Amino acid sequence: MKIQIIMGSSSDMPVAEKAKAIFEEFGIMYDIKVASAHRTPDVLQNLVEKSDADVFIGIAGLSAALPGTIAAHTIKPVIGVPVSGKVNLDAILSIIQMPPGVPVGAVGLDRGENAALLAIEILAVHDTKLEKKLLQYRKTMRKKALSK
Amino acid sequence: MKIQIIMGSSSDMPVAEKAKAIFEEFGIMYDIKVASAHRTPDVLQNLVEKSDADVFIGIAGLSAALPGTIAAHTIKPVIGVPVSGKVNLDAILSIIQMPPGVPVGAVGLDRGENAALLAIEILAVHDTKLEKKLLQYRKTMRKKALSK
Amino acid sequence: MKIQIIMGSSSDMPVAEKAKAIFEEFGIMYDIKVASAHRTPDVLQNLVEKSDADVFIGIAGLSAALPGTIAAHTIKPVIGVPVSGKVNLDAILSIIQMPPGVPVGAVGLDRGENAALLAIEILAVHDTKLEKKLLQYRKTMRKKALSK
Amino acid sequence: MKIQIIMGSSSDMPVAEKAKAIFEEFGIMYDIKVASAHRTPDVLQNLVEKSDADVFIGIAGLSAALPGTIAAHTIKPVIGVPVSGKVNLDAILSIIQMPPGVPVGAVGLDRGENAALLAIEILAVHDTKLEKKLLQYRKTMRKKALSK
Amino acid sequence: MKIQIIMGSSSDMPVAEKAKAIFEEFGIMYDIKVASAHRTPDVLQNLVEKSDADVFIGIAGLSAALPGTIAAHTIKPVIGVPVSGKVNLDAILSIIQMPPGVPVGAVGLDRGENAALLAIEILAVHDTKLEKKLLQYRKTMRKKALSK
Amino acid sequence: MKIQIIMGSSSDMPVAEKAKAIFEEFGIMYDIKVASAHRTPDVLQNLVEKSDADVFIGIAGLSAALPGTIAAHTIKPVIGVPVSGKVNLDAILSIIQMPPGVPVGAVGLDRGENAALLAIEILAVHDTKLEKKLLQYRKTMRKKALSK
Amino acid sequence: MKIQIIMGSSSDMPVAEKAKAIFEEFGIMYDIKVASAHRTPDVLQNLVEKSDADVFIGIAGLSAALPGTIAAHTIKPVIGVPVSGKVNLDAILSIIQMPPGVPVGAVGLDRGENAALLAIEILAVHDTKLEKKLLQYRKTMRKKALSK
Amino acid sequence: MKIQIIMGSSSDMPVAEKAKAIFEEFGIMYDIKVASAHRTPDVLQNLVEKSDADVFIGIAGLSAALPGTIAAHTIKPVIGVPVSGKVNLDAILSIIQMPPGVPVGAVGLDRGENAALLAIEILAVHDTKLEKKLLQYRKTMRKKALSK
Repeated sequence: MKIQIIMGSSSDMPVAEKAKAIFEEFGIMYDIKVASAHRTPDVLQNLVEKSDADVFIGIAGLSAALPGTIAAHTIKPVIGVPVSGKVNLDAILSIIQMPPGVPVGAVGLDRGENAALLAIEILAVHDTKLEKKLLQYRKTMRKKALSK
Repeated sequence: MKIQIIMGSSSDMPVAEKAKAIFEEFGIMYDIKVASAHRTPDVLQNLVEKSDADVFIGIAGLSAALPGTIAAHTIKPVIGVPVSGKVNLDAILSIIQMPPGVPVGAVGLDRGENAALLAIEILAVHDTKLEKKLLQYRKTMRKKALSK
Repeated sequence: MKIQIIMGSSSDMPVAEKAKAIFEEFGIMYDIKVASAHRTPDVLQNLVEKSDADVFIGIAGLSAALPGTIAAHTIKPVIGVPVSGKVNLDAILSIIQMPPGVPVGAVGLDRGENAALLAIEILAVHDTKLEKKLLQYRKTMRKKALSK
Repeated sequence: MKIQIIMGSSSDMPVAEKAKAIFEEFGIMYDIKVASAHRTPDVLQNLVEKSDADVFIGIAGLSAALPGTIAAHTIKPVIGVPVSGKVNLDAILSIIQMPPGVPVGAVGLDRGENAALLAIEILAVHDTKLEKKLLQYRKTMRKKALSK
Repeated sequence: MKIQIIMGSSSDMPVAEKAKAIFEEFGIMYDIKVASAHRTPDVLQNLVEKSDADVFIGIAGLSAALPGTIAAHTIKPVIGVPVSGKVNLDAILSIIQMPPGVPVGAVGLDRGENAALLAIEILAVHDTKLEKKLLQYRKTMRKKALSK
Repeated sequence: MKIQIIMGSSSDMPVAEKAKAIFEEFGIMYDIKVASAHRTPDVLQNLVEKSDADVFIGIAGLSAALPGTIAAHTIKPVIGVPVSGKVNLDAILSIIQMPPGVPVGAVGLDRGENAALLAIEILAVHDTKLEKKLLQYRKTMRKKALSK
Repeated sequence: MKIQIIMGSSSDMPVAEKAKAIFEEFGIMYDIKVASAHRTPDVLQNLVEKSDADVFIGIAGLSAALPGTIAAHTIKPVIGVPVSGKVNLDAILSIIQMPPGVPVGAVGLDRGENAALLAIEILAVHDTKLEKKLLQYRKTMRKKALSK
Repeated sequence: MKIQIIMGSSSDMPVAEKAKAIFEEFGIMYDIKVASAHRTPDVLQNLVEKSDADVFIGIAGLSAALPGTIAAHTIKPVIGVPVSGKVNLDAILSIIQMPPGVPVGAVGLDRGENAALLAIEILAVHDTKLEKKLLQYRKTMRKKALSK
């Protein structure tokens, strides 16, 4: 498996679905699990430490400690996706404002598809076949945008 | 020991000092340690799980996952203190916006003294001697305020 | 009675209901009253001063002076719950940014259930039976989270 | 006495001084006291209830419950002045977002002089002499502005 | 006429209606007009300068220059009511952050009823009959609050 | 004269100086005056109505009604410059959030130079000589940027 | 053609429609295209560089780089319109906070009509016929406002 | 070369220096250039398109279009670093809120070191030697944290 998607709550599924759609389009192996930094920290730690994933995606709202906690347990790239709610700045700032030494790459609010694309870009650094697919994806996106 | 103070970084000491001063004034046993939810998560977990403290105080800035992570590892009351920086809303919202099931009681920005007083109020629920000291403290505070 | 819940307005009931459900699940005696820091300050003061509650929960929106005013009249632990509205930062900041000397422990927006759990954690500091129930509650929460 | 100025803390004096200067320029009797909604609520209540002031000015920072608490104890007009600090939106929103039925008229951050002028405008509604002084003040202000 | 209510747009009527209901309950003469600081500045200026109102209420959203512009043309007390929209902080900050010398007393978002009550408090400073009505109003409000 | 710069207060001069420097570099006739929407509304109105300027620049902080008020009195293009202070969002939102029908083009916080450049771009729409100067300015800016 | 409207996404059309209605009312030639600073940067650059438009209007939400990117490729006046979404401050701040040297004139959230009116004001600087139409438009707007 | 760092302005150097220090510690080849999305868009595009870098880091403040513009011209991973200023939310939101299809991974305000570490994590996905260095770096960081 290449990509481990972790949601802080099963209610974050609509955002994970956007990532899922991208991974299936690209034929990238992925797995989606629910594990909370606050409710099941040991499950989360175990999941991260035992994983052979190349990239992690953490999806969470509110005080979104999930992506940062994943990053605390791995040196693999971690992408954080803030989930929208009543405040929005809470999840955005919780995910982006990581302290020095433990990086998370944050994408936009509810932007599961961008998390997936960034993960694929990371894999494509050493995978020319995937790189070509990405270039093709951009071309298709471009065509769709132009056809409107 | 009654109170475990944990700072996310040694740079949070000025806020911890405010708590320390209160605990010393009340003669409450406390301990201060640095343990980061992001840099030393195992040390943090170990510290919380092995502790016999009655109340935890987590002091952190930025994406302040510390108090919430403490709360994930204990059912003792956890008080969170956001530390000021360039954004401020980051630490405030990260600490206060905890998901259902894992509570943190957040005090104001840099408000180490209030964290200590809330901790003492918690201990005083079953300690009439401490309750009297708290009443005395309020009276003194009141007198100081009036003398101005 | 152990816990006094006070709402600033009867429209805050949906948030109080979340606390109520937790207290009933744990078999904790509680009482819910409406008393406003602005509309019925004497009733609020009287309610707080005459109460034999161990912990207070203040639930309020807008310029949410209620939890701070409760804290001004008691040395018992006070938990504040900001209620969502058109601005949200108003209630969050009004409740969390208490001045030195009069602490309130703030939980997240509309987080009545966390206020109740924090209150129970406070009671459990000297109540091993309650402590066990809390541990059991966490286990159940964990199982529910994992079953998804 | 016509105007009762109340500060939440003696550290709010620089803002009160701006009001003081205006009242002395207009020859309006005023009084300045420190009384906190959180630290000395009874002193505050007593001060408000016993006062024969026509207008109250409450000056406070952070979770600025002071003006709202004054308004809870009087039907005289209450003017609130938020005091600047690390967050600023805390005092602004705490003072302006009063619930229905208990009004506070909020002026700008640290705007003690505008609180005083608004108070004088209120007194001048039934005082033609004061009205003339206000018109004269505006003219002078205008001249100063134009001379630059 | 005692009170001149001015709305920046006819779409602000729901907020003005709250003020209207209060004035009718108190038997206070009032008038409601639409006049925009941006679309009909001369009408606004004329309306303010020719008015014999004792208090002005300006109701506006967005870049809410209306209350400040009223204040620029009168030395009567001006109360500003920010109207809610997509941003909310725009109207709140536009109304409250007036420069030195030209005060506006701002009430909460959409708080037309509080603007009216503050206006009545201002009139009641020299009207004991009105003062009694205000006291009665508070008592009724209190009873309603307690009956819930 | 081509450009009328109006500052809400003489303290806004540092921002106006940035515009001045640009106009002098381009040899554009301009005039700088202080006129406040709140303190000297008639002077402001008179200045705008009598002006033969092609473009207006309004520079103001806090509740920055100045650019919008200029726009209310002219159909010439109006550029608004928010001036930094303790809140910043106040001036930004006051200037940008104009109601339909009365446009202001807002530039960034303290961005006097950009207001001037936008004004010159407007004049250059029908002035090929000025257009060439603008192209030259861009080239020079580009060279400076590249030389670093 | 006089005015080039560019939307970052076809979903911004409701805001562009407001501009369209104004241009048609004034009989101004305009063109609307979709071109994204992020998805089709070359199309955007080509569109801007080849255009003979006198004024550009860029309409975009989220991280709204579109107006700034247009401004990077032209010395014609560029008007930016932030489009509302889940955060709103994102598009407002992205558009208004341009660096020195490359100005964008930002109008309010979703304010397509004001972008169009500002564009017409710019054209009218050297077009007395258009100037008269603008004056007439203001008069009609004024009448509509007064008739309410 | 492995990593291309691009700053929007030479004033962003202090943030780039933090990245530089990390890359030198890890012995990673990098290059730092200034190229602005607004002032030198062609230089930026050329730099990105001709680069053989595996990862890009874009460092910018204000309306920080730089990282998004880099991402528009490459399918390599792009990391964005918001630079602090008078508003801060401007750069944070401009960088994080990218539209669907063109991802940027945003790190915290002024967090150049985290951008570098995330870039190294990306390279290490297929470089076991680098992976070991990262593990070693974490251990050292951990020791430093514990020694305090």
